Amino acid sequence: MSDLRILARHLGHRFRDESLVIQALTHRSASSRNNERLEFLGDALLGVVIAEVLWQRFPDASEGDLSRLRASLVNKEMLARLARDLTLGDYLVLGPGEQRTGGHQRDSILADALEAIFAAVYLDADFHTVRQVILGIFEAALAETRDDQVDKDPKTRLQERLQAKRRPLPEYEVLGVDGSQHAQVFHVRCRLPDDDREVHGDGTSRRRAEQAAAESMLERLDDDD
Amino acid sequence: MSDLRILARHLGHRFRDESLVIQALTHRSASSRNNERLEFLGDALLGVVIAEVLWQRFPDASEGDLSRLRASLVNKEMLARLARDLTLGDYLVLGPGEQRTGGHQRDSILADALEAIFAAVYLDADFHTVRQVILGIFEAALAETRDDQVDKDPKTRLQERLQAKRRPLPEYEVLGVDGSQHAQVFHVRCRLPDDDREVHGDGTSRRRAEQAAAESMLERLDDDD
Repeated sequence: MSDLRILARHLGHRFRDESLVIQALTHRSASSRNNERLEFLGDALLGVVIAEVLWQRFPDASEGDLSRLRASLVNKEMLARLARDLTLGDYLVLGPGEQRTGGHQRDSILADALEAIFAAVYLDADFHTVRQVILGIFEAALAETRDDQVDKDPKTRLQERLQAKRRPLPEYEVLGVDGSQHAQVFHVRCRLPDDDREVHGDGTSRRRAEQAAAESMLERLDDDD
Repeated sequence: MSDLRILARHLGHRFRDESLVIQALTHRSASSRNNERLEFLGDALLGVVIAEVLWQRFPDASEGDLSRLRASLVNKEMLARLARDLTLGDYLVLGPGEQRTGGHQRDSILADALEAIFAAVYLDADFHTVRQVILGIFEAALAETRDDQVDKDPKTRLQERLQAKRRPLPEYEVLGVDGSQHAQVFHVRCRLPDDDREVHGDGTSRRRAEQAAAESMLERLDDDD
């Protein structure tokens, strides 16, 4: 294993308890004291830190936009890329089978180890520290993050998404209008004609109700993917 | 809306910025300044706080066990139940359609508002504070959390899970053995005969390799669910 002090410098955190970072670097093929449980905690820490930074940075993004943006940053390929930037492969502790078959450079092993390191930093220090470490590692990736989808309204996004799959356009229908004349609420149904799926949306205008229904339908389609 | 000071007392956090908690209580049917984005952040905060407490409390639980335990605590039904304990329905800000159709007591609306409140606490204070608030609210549910599955080994759990679905038992086969006589690594395949799915596992004994393969298969089945 390479010198852990160099890794500490790259991370921006010097471990008080080095056994934590060693466990984070240990694959299950090498020891029963491995990084699988740490990875579970690290994945959750990464999720919340990236959620917060996106929440702050994209004040107009919907919940669905934020989920999509996070998924573009938190995934195996991105984590493996960032792990390679840290030369994490040089520090991994692998069993003989994984060593022989190139485990040091395997995306899933690198990604899991990086997540486990986030948990190790948190346990060694605190939330503030792991937040700084994660933001440092993701700085360039975050700077590249633009969302072309953010500025588009839900009806446009739904239409583009269905067209990309050569599916027919959604149908909107006003089911009813509630409230007094100056506080009306429109109830709209959005239906996909090719699979009979439908969702409803409410809004203070027909247009707003249609946008709400389109947003619900986008979330439904997200669940399918 | 009921007195926010009473809610603050139940939560164990008095908001400096009350507009945050009001936004957290506001459903999308009532205003464009609603709780949907806060819910995204709150869900991530809840995920990490529960991940950590389970990680600490179940030192022998595998990553898969921890995921299952968390899913048993973090779900719409549990969140709605806890929201009802806080009488959150009395504070919700809903549009007229949702008011009329009982939105104050709908599980999904209550669950989303509670998650949004976690984000509001975090933004109003810090991670330490929201962690205390979440642990307070989940105290009884956490105390009830036992995992009967934790103590069972992966082969037993896989067998029970397949039997529950009336599926045939998995087949294990040693594919090879690596390493010197005193540092052997066994490579085992686990196969489901009814759908030809297979995964591999390594271990320092045949039994350990089979357990590793069974654990992988359980994770694969989790992904399906």
